[in-house]
Amino acid sequence: MSSQLPATLSSVRALLRQGHTLVQIQCGPEVTTSCNKEIIHQVPNSKRTLWTTSKPAGSFDCCSLCSSGTLAFCILSSSSGTPGPREGAFLGCFQSAGCHRYQSEGTAHLSHLFLLHGLSPEADSSPLAMTQHLPSLTRVAVCGGTHGNEMSGVFLVRHWMRDPSELQRSTFHAVPFLGNPRATEQCRRYIDRDLNRTFTADFLNSKVPDTDLYEVQRAQEINQTFGPKSSSQAYDLMLDLHNTTANMGSCLIVDSGNNLLAMHMCNYIQKHSGIRHCPILLYQQQPEEETYSVFSVAKVGLALELGPQPQGVARADLLAQMRSIVACALDFIEEFNQGMLFPALETEAYKVVGFVDFPRYPNGEISAAIHPNLQDKDFQPLKSGDPIFQTVSGEDILYEGDKTTYPVFINEAAYYEKRVAFIETEKCTVSHPALQKSF
Amino acid sequence: MSSQLPATLSSVRALLRQGHTLVQIQCGPEVTTSCNKEIIHQVPNSKRTLWTTSKPAGSFDCCSLCSSGTLAFCILSSSSGTPGPREGAFLGCFQSAGCHRYQSEGTAHLSHLFLLHGLSPEADSSPLAMTQHLPSLTRVAVCGGTHGNEMSGVFLVRHWMRDPSELQRSTFHAVPFLGNPRATEQCRRYIDRDLNRTFTADFLNSKVPDTDLYEVQRAQEINQTFGPKSSSQAYDLMLDLHNTTANMGSCLIVDSGNNLLAMHMCNYIQKHSGIRHCPILLYQQQPEEETYSVFSVAKVGLALELGPQPQGVARADLLAQMRSIVACALDFIEEFNQGMLFPALETEAYKVVGFVDFPRYPNGEISAAIHPNLQDKDFQPLKSGDPIFQTVSGEDILYEGDKTTYPVFINEAAYYEKRVAFIETEKCTVSHPALQKSF
Repeated sequence: MSSQLPATLSSVRALLRQGHTLVQIQCGPEVTTSCNKEIIHQVPNSKRTLWTTSKPAGSFDCCSLCSSGTLAFCILSSSSGTPGPREGAFLGCFQSAGCHRYQSEGTAHLSHLFLLHGLSPEADSSPLAMTQHLPSLTRVAVCGGTHGNEMSGVFLVRHWMRDPSELQRSTFHAVPFLGNPRATEQCRRYIDRDLNRTFTADFLNSKVPDTDLYEVQRAQEINQTFGPKSSSQAYDLMLDLHNTTANMGSCLIVDSGNNLLAMHMCNYIQKHSGIRHCPILLYQQQPEEETYSVFSVAKVGLALELGPQPQGVARADLLAQMRSIVACALDFIEEFNQGMLFPALETEAYKVVGFVDFPRYPNGEISAAIHPNLQDKDFQPLKSGDPIFQTVSGEDILYEGDKTTYPVFINEAAYYEKRVAFIETEKCTVSHPALQKSF
Repeated sequence: MSSQLPATLSSVRALLRQGHTLVQIQCGPEVTTSCNKEIIHQVPNSKRTLWTTSKPAGSFDCCSLCSSGTLAFCILSSSSGTPGPREGAFLGCFQSAGCHRYQSEGTAHLSHLFLLHGLSPEADSSPLAMTQHLPSLTRVAVCGGTHGNEMSGVFLVRHWMRDPSELQRSTFHAVPFLGNPRATEQCRRYIDRDLNRTFTADFLNSKVPDTDLYEVQRAQEINQTFGPKSSSQAYDLMLDLHNTTANMGSCLIVDSGNNLLAMHMCNYIQKHSGIRHCPILLYQQQPEEETYSVFSVAKVGLALELGPQPQGVARADLLAQMRSIVACALDFIEEFNQGMLFPALETEAYKVVGFVDFPRYPNGEISAAIHPNLQDKDFQPLKSGDPIFQTVSGEDILYEGDKTTYPVFINEAAYYEKRVAFIETEKCTVSHPALQKSF
């Protein structure tokens, strides 16, 4: 990404004087609560949206989903306008749609994201990068059995550990591994705690007594082998293979829609895998949450979530689909490493916005089942007033959300204990500029 | 059942001289191995089958599936023809189809089952009982959560424990209970061992150290409350509610086709539940095996096995089906107790004849999945040469059985650890005479 755009607020003001529209979103710890959540902003004169997330410290993501001809960039300033430690620091910019990630230095600060609308490359003399460039990927990990009773990944990874030839391409090295061997041996989701919620700094750095928990030990081993997380030594990419009991088809899960490489990979899989239904789920964590999943150890992660399949069962049809998608993802990396230009993309995705629990009795037991009208209807619209649960006495419980949602993970077995009957998502369109390896 | 037919071998010989056909099946501990297994015999001039099982001691069952006009009865003799302790003892007889159970006195003996074909009631002066009579049922138990992750039964039994009114009728008392509360709490099949394989004399009578196993303790509690097993104090009937990940519909499982009351109940459910597909599975144990399931504690047992449903998931459609079947079974008991005459029945059933494991690597790991052509095809014919497994390398593995089988429990999650990929059954027709309460 080019960094030759105006680097200070005064330069932005100069651009505004030239007649550009400015959309500003403030976010940061000192601002209102709503600003500590994810903000979705409608770009004026456009049907696209802009969003950004803010964290007091750690990584800061912003993503523009603007139409071509829009310039977006970020700068830092203090909350009051008084120059802070990095006042005016320029974080990056991109024309057309794009993605930027800024790693703050651990101090709380206020960030501003600016969007200049109506700026075309011709109208600006800055040497803007229309095509995004990223370094090639040389180390790829393929994880199965993160949950020991999700059998497609267990079955395939065990096969590839016997014979990894199917994973190899000419430009990178791919390593299959079992995420949770002990849980896999016992055909259970986990032994002591969910491994896929254990890759936080606290667990990765913990000594005794937390390391008595098997999955904490295992997360530290995985972090040592394929990380360390957030370091330059980490693997470039991790594919993590999951199953769900929900009717989610061949779902592709990425951490956010602003993950340029992951979104290009998903788009490639949708076009080349030969599988009809590969919906993209943007499983963005809450801004205040640290990333915790196994694939967060690598620089980029993609999880496959194939269903419906019961826990403890391997179905041949889902095995074949998962295998096709992994092959397709590896082909994408190979082509990327070989210098292929992937054109700008626009694709549909589903963004996690909420969690809905089962109705329960006072003692915590579930008092109603997923309604037959909702069962198996993952990724289909659910409107206010539609039935979502059915009690034992035959009463329907209706959805009270104020806008249409697209539920996923409906009746997922593993989420009963997490008190999640289904997850609400919003349908959105994700756009990204062209991608090519940096030379 | 009348016992006024010829009581000695010489009387049988006299009948033969009158021109009747005699089919004889020998079974007993001294005879060949094949005779210690279940014997299925084709009745001459009929498409029906006759079977009998033999045990060295304990209960001795024989069941005629003959057409109307066939007379079947059993006598005892020694192995050599030399009179034994109960030589010539007459065990019972029945015309048309029927069922007989003889409880031996614990000494090994040779049994002979005779079948006289072509004898009509008119041709014989014996006062044969055309309608079978059994005592009324006063105590019924309904068990859910025998396996703690089979959620339909867990859900329903928890509901009925809150409000048992739905289970009550005017002529008997029905008690709902959770088979394995601790496994249910953890949403696991079991804690230490499969509860539904724990109702044998060894476990039911064991003291330390076996009682360290939770399910052994629990089996003893259940036996104390609803048994003791094989005693006159035992509950009259137990319904045991299960789910399977296999596509088995609303399957009804009974211990054998000669269970007169259970077969009438199944027939009633098939006709009155409003559910299209309620196949009957005859899960007869091997002759040398002691019964081990939870419902063996009661005098008569019926298990419901509804699927497909993932472990740990409650689907509203299967909940409704299971509830209908339980209601229908209770209605049957109510009508039976009220003196209703249930006419002679003839129904299709599937009899367990074998178990097929997955192909495996030398280390025990599974090397092939259920073939897509077989997946979800429970109760559909499988012929020699049909594909049953698909290896990771895409090779098909074909069925080598010498006759058509009707596989069930295809890809059942809980059977992976039992090394069962599917169970082979034979389709048969079961006939029984009319049934009415004895007055």
